[in-house]
Amino acid sequence: MKRGFGSDNHSGVHPKILKSLSEANIEHAPSYGTDEWTERAEKSFKNHFGEQTQVFFVFNGTAANVTALRALAKPYQAVFCSDVAHIHVDECGAPEFMAGLKLYPLRSVNGKITVEVLEKGYIRRGDQHYSQGQVVSLTQPTELGSVYSVEELKNIIAWAKERKILVHIDGSRLSNAVMYLKKSFKELTTDLGVDIVSFGGTKNGLMMGEAVVILNQELARDFKYIRKQSAQLPSKTRFIACQFEAYFKDNLWHDIATHAHTKALELYTAVRDITGVSVREVPQSNAVFVTLPPAWIKILRKDYFFYVWDEHSFECRFMTSWDTQSEDIQGLAKKMKEIRP
Amino acid sequence: MKRGFGSDNHSGVHPKILKSLSEANIEHAPSYGTDEWTERAEKSFKNHFGEQTQVFFVFNGTAANVTALRALAKPYQAVFCSDVAHIHVDECGAPEFMAGLKLYPLRSVNGKITVEVLEKGYIRRGDQHYSQGQVVSLTQPTELGSVYSVEELKNIIAWAKERKILVHIDGSRLSNAVMYLKKSFKELTTDLGVDIVSFGGTKNGLMMGEAVVILNQELARDFKYIRKQSAQLPSKTRFIACQFEAYFKDNLWHDIATHAHTKALELYTAVRDITGVSVREVPQSNAVFVTLPPAWIKILRKDYFFYVWDEHSFECRFMTSWDTQSEDIQGLAKKMKEIRP
Amino acid sequence: MKRGFGSDNHSGVHPKILKSLSEANIEHAPSYGTDEWTERAEKSFKNHFGEQTQVFFVFNGTAANVTALRALAKPYQAVFCSDVAHIHVDECGAPEFMAGLKLYPLRSVNGKITVEVLEKGYIRRGDQHYSQGQVVSLTQPTELGSVYSVEELKNIIAWAKERKILVHIDGSRLSNAVMYLKKSFKELTTDLGVDIVSFGGTKNGLMMGEAVVILNQELARDFKYIRKQSAQLPSKTRFIACQFEAYFKDNLWHDIATHAHTKALELYTAVRDITGVSVREVPQSNAVFVTLPPAWIKILRKDYFFYVWDEHSFECRFMTSWDTQSEDIQGLAKKMKEIRP
Amino acid sequence: MKRGFGSDNHSGVHPKILKSLSEANIEHAPSYGTDEWTERAEKSFKNHFGEQTQVFFVFNGTAANVTALRALAKPYQAVFCSDVAHIHVDECGAPEFMAGLKLYPLRSVNGKITVEVLEKGYIRRGDQHYSQGQVVSLTQPTELGSVYSVEELKNIIAWAKERKILVHIDGSRLSNAVMYLKKSFKELTTDLGVDIVSFGGTKNGLMMGEAVVILNQELARDFKYIRKQSAQLPSKTRFIACQFEAYFKDNLWHDIATHAHTKALELYTAVRDITGVSVREVPQSNAVFVTLPPAWIKILRKDYFFYVWDEHSFECRFMTSWDTQSEDIQGLAKKMKEIRP
Repeated sequence: MKRGFGSDNHSGVHPKILKSLSEANIEHAPSYGTDEWTERAEKSFKNHFGEQTQVFFVFNGTAANVTALRALAKPYQAVFCSDVAHIHVDECGAPEFMAGLKLYPLRSVNGKITVEVLEKGYIRRGDQHYSQGQVVSLTQPTELGSVYSVEELKNIIAWAKERKILVHIDGSRLSNAVMYLKKSFKELTTDLGVDIVSFGGTKNGLMMGEAVVILNQELARDFKYIRKQSAQLPSKTRFIACQFEAYFKDNLWHDIATHAHTKALELYTAVRDITGVSVREVPQSNAVFVTLPPAWIKILRKDYFFYVWDEHSFECRFMTSWDTQSEDIQGLAKKMKEIRP
Repeated sequence: MKRGFGSDNHSGVHPKILKSLSEANIEHAPSYGTDEWTERAEKSFKNHFGEQTQVFFVFNGTAANVTALRALAKPYQAVFCSDVAHIHVDECGAPEFMAGLKLYPLRSVNGKITVEVLEKGYIRRGDQHYSQGQVVSLTQPTELGSVYSVEELKNIIAWAKERKILVHIDGSRLSNAVMYLKKSFKELTTDLGVDIVSFGGTKNGLMMGEAVVILNQELARDFKYIRKQSAQLPSKTRFIACQFEAYFKDNLWHDIATHAHTKALELYTAVRDITGVSVREVPQSNAVFVTLPPAWIKILRKDYFFYVWDEHSFECRFMTSWDTQSEDIQGLAKKMKEIRP
Repeated sequence: MKRGFGSDNHSGVHPKILKSLSEANIEHAPSYGTDEWTERAEKSFKNHFGEQTQVFFVFNGTAANVTALRALAKPYQAVFCSDVAHIHVDECGAPEFMAGLKLYPLRSVNGKITVEVLEKGYIRRGDQHYSQGQVVSLTQPTELGSVYSVEELKNIIAWAKERKILVHIDGSRLSNAVMYLKKSFKELTTDLGVDIVSFGGTKNGLMMGEAVVILNQELARDFKYIRKQSAQLPSKTRFIACQFEAYFKDNLWHDIATHAHTKALELYTAVRDITGVSVREVPQSNAVFVTLPPAWIKILRKDYFFYVWDEHSFECRFMTSWDTQSEDIQGLAKKMKEIRP
Repeated sequence: MKRGFGSDNHSGVHPKILKSLSEANIEHAPSYGTDEWTERAEKSFKNHFGEQTQVFFVFNGTAANVTALRALAKPYQAVFCSDVAHIHVDECGAPEFMAGLKLYPLRSVNGKITVEVLEKGYIRRGDQHYSQGQVVSLTQPTELGSVYSVEELKNIIAWAKERKILVHIDGSRLSNAVMYLKKSFKELTTDLGVDIVSFGGTKNGLMMGEAVVILNQELARDFKYIRKQSAQLPSKTRFIACQFEAYFKDNLWHDIATHAHTKALELYTAVRDITGVSVREVPQSNAVFVTLPPAWIKILRKDYFFYVWDEHSFECRFMTSWDTQSEDIQGLAKKMKEIRP
């Protein structure tokens, strides 16, 4: 396949993570999470999220979200999320099917929801006919690449906590937000009162593997059964754990996030002034949203794959990754300039 | 961890498969199963199971079974299986939870069920109060290491087909049975009328990854949605596909199965005559069931891990794998002889 | 309890239906739908909806909807409905929980959806990440008391049929629409291509009981199992069946619908000119939507119960029923006039 | 239909209960359980089960069991029950489907389970691969008409409580057991530590309606949502409540139970000595199990319906009811004697 900007999961495995996989391939290890790699990876998560953290590895992002929601809410409850949330529009109804619950998609602006729309959706409390919203799920960074500021998070979480509503972060690219905000993982989650994080690996250079990071200890009690019953218990767990071990070692996570963000800025800069092109905003993570003349799309895609995000406005999404190169970006920009006239 | 006989998922990744993973780590590949590795792996499955085969990669064995059952039966139907079937006793209720259905565990002998017990369980047809058995699920080889003969399979499948009941093979170690019976995959599945196979990889030298092999094309139609909604769609699919590609290349699957079986025979031979030890039967796959004096267990486990299969009779299970070495076996036997007196 | 306009389920049982219940209380009858009352009621439904009709009695409206949706869609599919649909906002997530599926609420005007909004929601076909809308569910009359015209139904159903999408009518008050449009049940459902109707009884004078009316025979095949597994198989079925028998006898259904509509018109006329009151539109069924000065609500409710439909605009819903009396209406209007100054 | 012994749900409605239904049919009543009949019925339940009792009306027995199990266990847990339990063999997989959980059917003798078989099934605690039994469900009286003695209940419940396992009674005919044991409802449930009772009405002379009687208050907290989401919230609740009000008034429940039991004894006495007939045991509730020569069955059923309980042994079940008459019994016995030679 040609290189491109389709998704950060089009990239392969970061060399350091692949090396960690090779090195973990020695002798025998107990299965189902009792191996030493898991132990060390768990320690890394505790270092980054705080001592009370309990982490459970699962296979993919849908799984992290669904098992987290099963722990956070009962089937007769509901989850507030944005109307562009991955759990709402990109998981083929997995949350409804596997957790039984209802989603309340709220009007978002640039991918974000606010206390105002939450308040508007917070209705009919105690009414048995109406699924009671019990969780706020925030995507950080959002599906549109924007990052909730600490202030925004604080406001939403305070609103939730006052109402005994739990808080979930869909963090398939959380490292990007943490890097961007120049905070620690703990400062952006645990310290603010987040209950569970779906922590992404696959989109950040891992081969495959995500982590359900439980910060509210009570919710961890039965989680092993939830994971197993959801068909998400890896047998050779060491091969997910060792990837996260490498991901946190020597701040690899920060290097990867920085690289992807830098390349997104570079792409933004390279294309924003091209006539006919309009760019949404300075990228806060590794996504650049660019509206193109419809006729360009097919031509550009011959060399560089990317997704049309909105079929009506022809806004397109360009994702950068740990392996995006300047030549990819310059090639794309060159191509745009060539077809312009 | 010390080496041992705990499970074939305690072993690491076969070097050829790890190599394939490294080699697949180039450039970009489209996600969600549209890459070239997936294409080649699909071709391998077609070569082995027949042209009409459709294959869907998932992450683990529970997932393969559960998604297969979702395709095979409606929630108001039921599945006949053995009373020691993995789907019944080792998946924390995943089939009931995710497929909604009911299991009818049937009395097994040496892990196998027969037409006789199926016939006994085939009752109350058309009675709306009683979940109607719609699927027979056979584990091949069984959880006790025995292998259904072609004749046994034929009888059961004929019984099922006469009643329009579908047939599922839980084949997390299917290669072992195929090697043992000296048949092809096709002869043992497609040609007999099997509808779906849960095809194992993880226990046969893969890092992680299983395949739902759909032989009855009609059942494949909506399967991509079932897989996605069950949180089992891998994004970087190439890294599962490339493992299966290597697994089938140059008959690696056969080498692995042969090695594991040879080592099981070796273990059987090494321990069967030790006083105090009683062995179930000549191994047909890679499991050896050995009843030990209770006092031995703790001592032996200091050096070689294995599971007590039956807490009452102290029958223990010793699994061999692609990486079991003669010195492991001889070490175990030596240890047994030493503690004997 | 004081009389009022809270809901048509605040009324009791119509005397003719109560009489039918008494008369059915003789001797023994086989349970689970094999009795003679069920046979006769089934015949009534066939008379009204066409010979191919198959009817299954269930206990309440949520159940009729949920079991219908289980027959119409797979868990990985979705249902298009209006954003004020009962299945979306008044069933505590029962459709998601019991049918596993996803709802796509579409922007409604006066309770109705159109081909335009359906077309807008008809996206990402074949995309495994996105639940595929497989059913259109229309409430007739709508939750806001409006009635889809034959033309509107035709357009929507034609749109659906072209896309192999199935059509469900949530008809908890369907008789009201049929009476209003001066058509037969068959003309408004079967002849237009509707697949399943949730047919209401409880809100139309029955004690309790609803009917799942299956017009698309293929969907009836396994329905008895769906009903039973959904905990909706009545044992003494005759006591639901005999109510529907009476409901259809001598056009009682039409009398009840006419009475409720007449009283709604009477209420509309009685209050529309009162200063401070604003009325939505001439009632098409048995609901009158009236916006009141907030201060009035508590005062009026002392004598006549009704619901505040919109907590922001103070639009209130007044329901009439088979037993609404002119004196109730005149009393309400009088009360309004008294508190006016 | 001819009269017979098919089931206690073949009988109609007890006249006193029908009268209560007629009397409740006045004016308007608020829906969904806030009416005065519900209030009075709730008080009756508190009188019989103790002050902390919370009662929720549902439509049928499957519903009572399924909603109770949803309150008692998480989907990843399991329920111990007898291998002839109604929840296991007569509800088309409703518990698995709606509560998501797994049933562990235990070998029963005469319909009963014991601490011994529970202890045998109490395995693999804490093992994430194995659904953890969290509830014991006892049918009282059992499906075979036998009654657990106070001593038997005490033993089982003590066993459960020591292991923090909750206790459910499937009491679709509980009144029969209470009458037989000459105890109060409270003595046989609350005082022993039972957590929830599925309390039957339909089989005891009601038209339709069952009650989920929650004795462990903590389990009642969210129950209204569970009921609604399970499609079991009756709108005109007064018409279920008023039946239970009548059922408890002037000890009608006791009269009905006594009548049914007396008639069962009468039937037992009338047939036990007929040559060719063999009777299981002196009836403890309203079921008489009689093994008949196969050839008799068709002949007898021409006049009196009854079910063949076991298709192999030709043991048949004869149920008596509130309306069973001596002439029914004598007629049956006469018929048997006639066909004997």
